[in-house]
Amino acid sequence: MAETKELVLLNCWASPYGMRCRIALAEKRVEYEHKDENLMEKSPLLLQSNPVHKKIPVLVHGGKPVCESLVIVQYVDEAWPDRAPLLPADAYGRAQARFWADFVDKKIFECGTKLWMLKKEAQGEAKKEFTEGLKLLEGELGEKKYFGGDTFGFVDVALVPLMAWFRTYESFGSFSAETEAPKLVAWGKRCMERESVAMSLPDPGKVYEFVCFMRKMFGLG
Amino acid sequence: MAETKELVLLNCWASPYGMRCRIALAEKRVEYEHKDENLMEKSPLLLQSNPVHKKIPVLVHGGKPVCESLVIVQYVDEAWPDRAPLLPADAYGRAQARFWADFVDKKIFECGTKLWMLKKEAQGEAKKEFTEGLKLLEGELGEKKYFGGDTFGFVDVALVPLMAWFRTYESFGSFSAETEAPKLVAWGKRCMERESVAMSLPDPGKVYEFVCFMRKMFGLG
Repeated sequence: MAETKELVLLNCWASPYGMRCRIALAEKRVEYEHKDENLMEKSPLLLQSNPVHKKIPVLVHGGKPVCESLVIVQYVDEAWPDRAPLLPADAYGRAQARFWADFVDKKIFECGTKLWMLKKEAQGEAKKEFTEGLKLLEGELGEKKYFGGDTFGFVDVALVPLMAWFRTYESFGSFSAETEAPKLVAWGKRCMERESVAMSLPDPGKVYEFVCFMRKMFGLG
Repeated sequence: MAETKELVLLNCWASPYGMRCRIALAEKRVEYEHKDENLMEKSPLLLQSNPVHKKIPVLVHGGKPVCESLVIVQYVDEAWPDRAPLLPADAYGRAQARFWADFVDKKIFECGTKLWMLKKEAQGEAKKEFTEGLKLLEGELGEKKYFGGDTFGFVDVALVPLMAWFRTYESFGSFSAETEAPKLVAWGKRCMERESVAMSLPDPGKVYEFVCFMRKMFGLG
């Protein structure tokens, strides 16, 4: 049985990628140990578990590490297949879900980082790409309750950490998420009503403070 | 039945991403129509099938498009599950395969493009990252026949288009693949003995000519 093995999540509380793993594990109602890594002084367990990228999150299951958040979420879905399915059952639905989760990685979170790391023109370009990404996601959501339809699923898990980061992106990108993508903001609030999401997302104000600290560290603030 | 539906691959012959799809379809022995796109003048079918990225490859199955090569290969594996499985059956094996395929995207093909697009220091950095990537892959391969063990699988499909591109990368990056990663080159030759691979990869000399043409177009040559 999968659950009898020791399960440890190596994470950093502010990481949207780590939040995905926490939400997936909460949806599956799986117990695990949460280890918050100091990214300035990574633990031997992290370096040994993810020698390739040396990044959090890593899910260590019975001593075997799984790296990369979307790979972890799919692993969690497949290792505990008997409850709260995250990927659709049909091949086409699964392909669509994987496509949009990949889109979230490339156009939202990678691009979002540019909003607080870059300045001037480069930041302006990132803002354009980011807000266009929000609108494309809003189009894909349409009138559905979740990206997964009536069921909270893979794309919802991939994207909803945005709710902890919107304030930061809005502050540094000088835009209003509510104005740019009101239906997406409403979707996010709907997701926040789920216990799995609410318990996995930190306070947006703390994320903002963390980013201000990071900017100072990088000599940007 | 999946196979009774019309199946069309929108592709460009030189794309390593498109080669993945061709290999996966050949492994499954599925018949399809191959449409070579002119990327300077993309077809309405491509723009309509992949409005988000507007890129090949796209697999259109019964009128429904699937985009992004690794998503397509997984879709092909799931839509024709009765033969030539590409992903392992167990959740952990699947997670490992997804991790390494993602690694190939980020550290080999994206990085490989930098070898012929960039110059001087930036190119030198890309070369370092690229050859380090080859060595990491060689470590993962170890003494196995394929990345999938005795079975040709997902990571093999993801990486083997490299065999059509090595000459180009070596020329612009000024290195020898044989010297840097001899076991990986031997693995590539082993893969080339498979009909599915041999029939899906173009002549490396033609890829090199294509890249020289592209460099001139971009004002780099």
